[in-house]
Amino acid sequence: MEHETVSTGSGPAVDVLTAPAWEAFRARWRASLVVSVGLDPTWDRLPEPFRRGSSAPDALVAFNREIIDATHDLACAFKPNTAFYERYGSLGWRALEQTAEYLRTTCPQVPLIVDAKRADIGSTNAGYVASLVDGLGAAAVTVSPYLGREALQPFLERERTAVFVLAKTSNPGAGELQDLPVGPGGRPLFELVASQVAEHWNSRGNCGLVVGATYPEALRAVRAVAGDLPLLVPGVGAQGGSPSEVVAAARDSTAGGSRGAHGVVVNASRGICYASSDPDRFADEARRATVELTEQLLGGAG
Amino acid sequence: MEHETVSTGSGPAVDVLTAPAWEAFRARWRASLVVSVGLDPTWDRLPEPFRRGSSAPDALVAFNREIIDATHDLACAFKPNTAFYERYGSLGWRALEQTAEYLRTTCPQVPLIVDAKRADIGSTNAGYVASLVDGLGAAAVTVSPYLGREALQPFLERERTAVFVLAKTSNPGAGELQDLPVGPGGRPLFELVASQVAEHWNSRGNCGLVVGATYPEALRAVRAVAGDLPLLVPGVGAQGGSPSEVVAAARDSTAGGSRGAHGVVVNASRGICYASSDPDRFADEARRATVELTEQLLGGAG
Repeated sequence: MEHETVSTGSGPAVDVLTAPAWEAFRARWRASLVVSVGLDPTWDRLPEPFRRGSSAPDALVAFNREIIDATHDLACAFKPNTAFYERYGSLGWRALEQTAEYLRTTCPQVPLIVDAKRADIGSTNAGYVASLVDGLGAAAVTVSPYLGREALQPFLERERTAVFVLAKTSNPGAGELQDLPVGPGGRPLFELVASQVAEHWNSRGNCGLVVGATYPEALRAVRAVAGDLPLLVPGVGAQGGSPSEVVAAARDSTAGGSRGAHGVVVNASRGICYASSDPDRFADEARRATVELTEQLLGGAG
Repeated sequence: MEHETVSTGSGPAVDVLTAPAWEAFRARWRASLVVSVGLDPTWDRLPEPFRRGSSAPDALVAFNREIIDATHDLACAFKPNTAFYERYGSLGWRALEQTAEYLRTTCPQVPLIVDAKRADIGSTNAGYVASLVDGLGAAAVTVSPYLGREALQPFLERERTAVFVLAKTSNPGAGELQDLPVGPGGRPLFELVASQVAEHWNSRGNCGLVVGATYPEALRAVRAVAGDLPLLVPGVGAQGGSPSEVVAAARDSTAGGSRGAHGVVVNASRGICYASSDPDRFADEARRATVELTEQLLGGAG
């Protein structure tokens, strides 16, 4: 039954087109929006006025609000990474809650991806679901696959929540485990993860995969085994991934179709948020950087 | 150079005996303390008086304090799992901070293991190090291996902090990825993770491994490839792992020696914290359960 709802080849991606988890994303893709704006503020990179007379967590929220105001009509999604908030403990979590609340109030149509890369045993994951999905109102979360499908069930059964499972991450040392040849066929672990997710974890149609822009060949390989599962692609810009290569890899999956940006979310954090440190221009420059990246991505896919 | 500081066979475990990360643990092991008391409180399992007129996060802290008071002289470590706090958002994180503060004040000699299973790309992990190590004062953390050594560098370079890397987790579906045969030899992934950690990740002597008590054969296999790296063993009791099997598996690593409980931390959460729901007896029963588990573990190793 699971297999019926999953495209593992070039057929139509039933899941992505109809599954409730992707509803908000579909609306953005239809509007040709593919860029996720990463809300990963670090105190010492904020324009100087934010750092004056304000605690670090309060400064993060104030900064995020301006980035959100400047980009919400261009963003496919907003993606805060929890580590940038958790570093300030409970006050940082409050800043993340306030950021989520601001998004919910000002632009509820833009999906919130909470990039937490969580994973624990099943009964414990229920706590993370309560935190990320019920508490923060995440439309999507990222999770780590190492404990297997059974452990992630509390996430996977939330059919209105998209679950991006790490396949190939964007860091330079990602391959140490992720490229290991596994099983009789000897294909790399990340590829096996991708096909497990597509074929067995996705029974509610809410699974996607994370593949770093820094590995365009991995992106192609994942596309080949995971059909049209949505891909969250971090690592363009500051981390070195090239938008045109991302597009070339994405093109494989939509070849011959006219779905444009459908099914791909390309995240950029530093390249947008720190496009300028000038307090009078940073918001405009963030907007300009979002437009530019969107054009690079969609232009290349034409 | 890394190899020189690691025991990969039956030789002496230079790391564990001298590395600064294990100093607090060594003192506990010398006192024949092996049980980690898991501080994973859930609201609806707290004795009734804790739930009266108190917010959930405040109730967790009040409950934890009584468990800590009742067991601190018997505990090898205390191990809160972040999910049980994060489920209440920033107020839950405050409860975790207050629990950590109480531990620091009343029993600084007992190491605090923050079970967070975090892992992100390197620059982002710095945020988790700030949160867990600098913020909460963790003596040890748990991390997930999927992104590889390079990503975990911010943890691994903190030589005074013990880093328990997930090898084989205690959940029923752990084997989906962790048991996959990898590489030319076809050994299971968890075993390869264990040997990578022992041979390549442990250059500061601060690495340990997580192996579930529910898989005694995995425990033996890990011992065989990871020498005397300390093992954090969750899953006894409520999850079904048997103390005597844990001991039998641990015995392999200390065969012929007289090191007793050295190098093993066996966690129990529900079996200790919910040994009784009677408000007048739960603390005494938690103490009794800790004594009993310690005896089962050490008695079996005699």
